Amino acid sequence: MNDEMLLLAGKTYESRLLVGTGKYRDLEETRLAIEASGAEIVTVAVRRTNIGQTPGEPNLLDVISPDKYTILPNTAGCYTADDAVRTCRLARELLDGHSLVKLEVLGDEKTLYPNVVETLKAAEVLVKDGFQVMVYTSDDPIIAKQLEEMGCVAVMPLGSLIGSGLGIINPYNLRIIMEQATVPIIVDAGVGTASDAAIAMELGCAGVLMNTAIAKAKNPVLMASAMKKAVEAGREAWLAGRMPRKLYASASSPLDGLFFK
Amino acid sequence: MNDEMLLLAGKTYESRLLVGTGKYRDLEETRLAIEASGAEIVTVAVRRTNIGQTPGEPNLLDVISPDKYTILPNTAGCYTADDAVRTCRLARELLDGHSLVKLEVLGDEKTLYPNVVETLKAAEVLVKDGFQVMVYTSDDPIIAKQLEEMGCVAVMPLGSLIGSGLGIINPYNLRIIMEQATVPIIVDAGVGTASDAAIAMELGCAGVLMNTAIAKAKNPVLMASAMKKAVEAGREAWLAGRMPRKLYASASSPLDGLFFK
Amino acid sequence: MNDEMLLLAGKTYESRLLVGTGKYRDLEETRLAIEASGAEIVTVAVRRTNIGQTPGEPNLLDVISPDKYTILPNTAGCYTADDAVRTCRLARELLDGHSLVKLEVLGDEKTLYPNVVETLKAAEVLVKDGFQVMVYTSDDPIIAKQLEEMGCVAVMPLGSLIGSGLGIINPYNLRIIMEQATVPIIVDAGVGTASDAAIAMELGCAGVLMNTAIAKAKNPVLMASAMKKAVEAGREAWLAGRMPRKLYASASSPLDGLFFK
Amino acid sequence: MNDEMLLLAGKTYESRLLVGTGKYRDLEETRLAIEASGAEIVTVAVRRTNIGQTPGEPNLLDVISPDKYTILPNTAGCYTADDAVRTCRLARELLDGHSLVKLEVLGDEKTLYPNVVETLKAAEVLVKDGFQVMVYTSDDPIIAKQLEEMGCVAVMPLGSLIGSGLGIINPYNLRIIMEQATVPIIVDAGVGTASDAAIAMELGCAGVLMNTAIAKAKNPVLMASAMKKAVEAGREAWLAGRMPRKLYASASSPLDGLFFK
Repeated sequence: MNDEMLLLAGKTYESRLLVGTGKYRDLEETRLAIEASGAEIVTVAVRRTNIGQTPGEPNLLDVISPDKYTILPNTAGCYTADDAVRTCRLARELLDGHSLVKLEVLGDEKTLYPNVVETLKAAEVLVKDGFQVMVYTSDDPIIAKQLEEMGCVAVMPLGSLIGSGLGIINPYNLRIIMEQATVPIIVDAGVGTASDAAIAMELGCAGVLMNTAIAKAKNPVLMASAMKKAVEAGREAWLAGRMPRKLYASASSPLDGLFFK
Repeated sequence: MNDEMLLLAGKTYESRLLVGTGKYRDLEETRLAIEASGAEIVTVAVRRTNIGQTPGEPNLLDVISPDKYTILPNTAGCYTADDAVRTCRLARELLDGHSLVKLEVLGDEKTLYPNVVETLKAAEVLVKDGFQVMVYTSDDPIIAKQLEEMGCVAVMPLGSLIGSGLGIINPYNLRIIMEQATVPIIVDAGVGTASDAAIAMELGCAGVLMNTAIAKAKNPVLMASAMKKAVEAGREAWLAGRMPRKLYASASSPLDGLFFK
Repeated sequence: MNDEMLLLAGKTYESRLLVGTGKYRDLEETRLAIEASGAEIVTVAVRRTNIGQTPGEPNLLDVISPDKYTILPNTAGCYTADDAVRTCRLARELLDGHSLVKLEVLGDEKTLYPNVVETLKAAEVLVKDGFQVMVYTSDDPIIAKQLEEMGCVAVMPLGSLIGSGLGIINPYNLRIIMEQATVPIIVDAGVGTASDAAIAMELGCAGVLMNTAIAKAKNPVLMASAMKKAVEAGREAWLAGRMPRKLYASASSPLDGLFFK
Repeated sequence: MNDEMLLLAGKTYESRLLVGTGKYRDLEETRLAIEASGAEIVTVAVRRTNIGQTPGEPNLLDVISPDKYTILPNTAGCYTADDAVRTCRLARELLDGHSLVKLEVLGDEKTLYPNVVETLKAAEVLVKDGFQVMVYTSDDPIIAKQLEEMGCVAVMPLGSLIGSGLGIINPYNLRIIMEQATVPIIVDAGVGTASDAAIAMELGCAGVLMNTAIAKAKNPVLMASAMKKAVEAGREAWLAGRMPRKLYASASSPLDGLFFK
């Protein structure tokens, strides 16, 4: 079924799970976890990971081969539009003209909440400069729409803060973002365990990106496998169309907006 | 890994998803959905389903073969201990001495909430009579413990009411039930969509039983596949050990009992 | 407005907040907190509190006068029907024929979850013996109905476990209990902070009973005042009829049972 | 206790409930509800309400007297910074130099979500122009901090969307906003019923602003009274310091970040 492929920046993918490469014990664990996740798109923090900047040191791309994976350089660690733009340009050089990037501009080091104003600025510059921009942002539907209208190829709202593991806190905003979107919406950040990933997909999003939930599980490789299945489960559940929620089976109508929860 | 097999009444199963056979459009849809679910244990309402009582009519066992599946006769539609005991004995006759049954005694037709007093009575009689009793009950940890001590081979607390689709409402009670249990705890009833099944498994239960969530999805066969993956995802996530939940990544300690939610 | 008075065992009360007397630092703190709570019904654990059993020791009734408060002796610490019945009879003696009691029979010392089977037994004996029985129980709607039909004057389901502070975990069961009830339903146990009390009242219950949430707040007297207001707020909100919940204001219909949360 | 007074733009208030004036049946209902709410600060949509712009028509200020209430003109209905600035200036003229305003710049008419970029622009202009700006915004902690640093006298993040009645969806963001703030944080929008207001106050915010929850209750005057009590209850509960949440009373430690909910 066509519907089962993710179309992103002109390319199709079978997997709707995107993964990061940070916080693993070593490159071998990184490799095994990413393999278990089934991910086809792997994001790399250009400022923290050697993808060729430091010749002679271990290079992530030796383990996560660009022949096998779509490498998605990201701007983690950037707190201004300028820094983020510069980082994307560096990535393009290192990756021989590769134009697909994940933009993130954060507000501070404590919370890692997105700085949406700087994000808008950077996105504008990058799109004009020919990048295909997948953009990390808050769950603000107005900002999400502006980023899409600016030409970003995917909008990636948070489920909750990076590294918090709090799951999908505001499904309402995500639902509004998806109702309005014409590009893929990928929930990025906040997933803590498998059910969180399923919930994201059941909301109708196009994919989920995560890093800490896998890398900081006690057993990252097994959690990667769990996430693969959870994303598929959530996607299929959304496509299958769930039963309505009722106070009890014989109730004549589903729960409505007057019930307090 | 041994841990990945469900041990139930002396037999091992690879699948931790148990399914019902009610509410499908026809026997063909039943068959396809059960196949997609990967379930190895299939429960059948003896009072509502022809498994041989009415010769000449379509027999469920022609579609769901006892050679392939463990058939689990259940007492759905029974509101007293006597009725339930009688129904189990009928099932044993119809199934040539088969002693594994799912006991459920409900409180009323409106809510389908378990009647735990009658359930205790019936369980006692059935265990003495040589049945291997898997028992549906509320999420009351005291009753769950009594049913186990009485000799039931599995205790099956509800996530929420049968046919409600409200998911796992009281994870706290389920956690207490599991902490105390020495037999498999299988969440039975309440699951509405894939993430609910994952949540049940992430609590550490041994399996999940469902019917309406699959049969009353718009596309039951696809939902069955979603549930298969969700149960596996939740199990693996539980085994893998999730990351802690924090207000933000740099917080020095996880969220605790003073935060209101 | 008549509706604003709680009618209980033939007597009316202005306050819908009932309070316990355990876990305070001393009798003076008990007195001040109860005064601040505005409660008119005060429950006393006969097994743990001196209400005359031990002459010469400080007597709670010197501080919480039966002239001012309706004293509600309770059977906290009883784990069998027999113990509970015996305790109620002792209370009746100590309180000169006082017949209003709060029955609680717990399942174990670890969780303090109600033992509903023993509770049913004790209630039956006590009602026949002329007691006016307010009965603590789980949120099991079938048991709640049986206790009412047995002649209990009020049914008191838990919000969550005694001393847990987890609030109202299963509003669905409470709603079903209230839909079916003809006697006052009073949520007893689980309230942790003011909003929990408001939520209980917004479900339509007749009152709330609490102890730990007040006694174990850092400032019990101020928390008692908070609870008084929260119970009144929740009651008024329920009477006033809340606005419906919508995804956004201009949505044409309230949220329904297909939204996952 | 000083702590019990709200200090806002150099003036103290006893009430921490701020109310709007829209959506009532008539001015008389507006007056009665506001009186019952105990509010001392009343916000008025300059673009929708006659406060002198249209001589000869009913004037809200005849009913809600500036002698009795602090009138807080707001920019509801503005979708650009320019519009909002113009509206504030008009209000200042109509109200004889009154400089306290509530700024809101929304993103679209469908969701009424704030446009934070335009809000930042308008706030900058207004602060420079000598206004005392209370500013409505999303729950984005980075934007909230910028608005404070810009010189706004109060920051007013949403609980959920205007008119949605969904309550406090993201307590985590609100907690972060409050941890960082040196001006009063007032939760504005989203409250649907009394417990929502209590929850907002239990998070430690300085006040709550609402309109629809009162005006669109079946009985607005009674709901106004409920909200008055709920805000006081939540404030007192926060000051009193709640008990910790535990799986059961005898558990040795509170619930932590590994429990999934």
